[in-house]
Amino acid sequence: MSDSPAGVADLLGVLAYAELTAFLRLAEDATRHAPSLGDRAALGDLAATEYAHFRLLHDRLTSLGVDPEEAMAPFVGPLDGWHTQTTPGDWLEVLVKAYVGTGIALDFYREAAARVDAETRRLVEEVLADEGRSQFAVERVSAALKEDPAQGGRLALWARRMVGEALSQGQHVAAARPELARLLAEAAGEDITRMFARLTEAHGRRMAAMGLTPKP
Amino acid sequence: MSDSPAGVADLLGVLAYAELTAFLRLAEDATRHAPSLGDRAALGDLAATEYAHFRLLHDRLTSLGVDPEEAMAPFVGPLDGWHTQTTPGDWLEVLVKAYVGTGIALDFYREAAARVDAETRRLVEEVLADEGRSQFAVERVSAALKEDPAQGGRLALWARRMVGEALSQGQHVAAARPELARLLAEAAGEDITRMFARLTEAHGRRMAAMGLTPKP
Repeated sequence: MSDSPAGVADLLGVLAYAELTAFLRLAEDATRHAPSLGDRAALGDLAATEYAHFRLLHDRLTSLGVDPEEAMAPFVGPLDGWHTQTTPGDWLEVLVKAYVGTGIALDFYREAAARVDAETRRLVEEVLADEGRSQFAVERVSAALKEDPAQGGRLALWARRMVGEALSQGQHVAAARPELARLLAEAAGEDITRMFARLTEAHGRRMAAMGLTPKP
Repeated sequence: MSDSPAGVADLLGVLAYAELTAFLRLAEDATRHAPSLGDRAALGDLAATEYAHFRLLHDRLTSLGVDPEEAMAPFVGPLDGWHTQTTPGDWLEVLVKAYVGTGIALDFYREAAARVDAETRRLVEEVLADEGRSQFAVERVSAALKEDPAQGGRLALWARRMVGEALSQGQHVAAARPELARLLAEAAGEDITRMFARLTEAHGRRMAAMGLTPKP
């Protein structure tokens, strides 16, 4: 165990609910917007992986003697709020959300995990590793942009809105869960500017990978 | 391989799409209607199992040299139609659908699988085995009915509507896919009455298990 058990339970709790709700939302997006059976199955694949991660985090909470539902409860409001504010309107928005929106959230969790105990960190790293699963989203979006570059503007705005909403919900979470905020602050040390630079850089790389010019 | 490869591809195709779409719809139902995080996770569990089944069927089609998307395509219309006609309005309807609606469909698939080759049948049996996964739906519904018996009437009607819609979509499928219809007819032999008696009996057992009086 870490010397910060409340922070660890919060980290595992927010991650568990993030995975559970990502699973359910991706499945919903696949039903509503996937243009072909192959696309539906590919997004289903992503969704099922999120569910497997949810189960790992759920079991880890249980083995630490923490009730998973209690650990997730504080984060239901902010995460549901984020998803409501970023409900995709079409297939390209679904793909950008699956890659860019999820990516920035995972980067935050990874930063927060830098100072927890080794076993928790190992689990968090496993859950956060992308392993090329979202590569199909990158390929689909960059192909669509090559065909119709005019889509780039609205998708860049869409990505920016997701990041803005994430920061806004993140502030609510930090205010409500000081232990979790402390994990992140301790991990950043005195150099919180560098942490934000890392996050911004990673976001820019994802935008570029899709063929979207990152807007500073 | 069976002596009826087109029927087998149809059977695996309809089953694969049934599992894929059940996965996606259950996830959607969980997001919309689950009254607690525990309920959401329990329905998520069911959904993830459907997805694992979809993958097994998908891989079996591929190994038979059949394109899974082509095999599923004829059944997208009827199965989407069934789900649209049976979109649950609340959590109890979600549970009755997960247990009764899915149950009657699975019984049909099981009958159709009686005459295919041994390896396909083994896979179909594995996919169709319930293994108590939907037990939580039975428990939740019968507890709700004990508390408020007045709900029984509308839920019994709801279950009847699902069966009616299934028969209606089943007729479209049988007309469009004669090989699949032949699998079912061959399995029933001359005794199609007995097959329907078996299906009706199983449906009645499920209704009774939930505390719903089966309406003849």
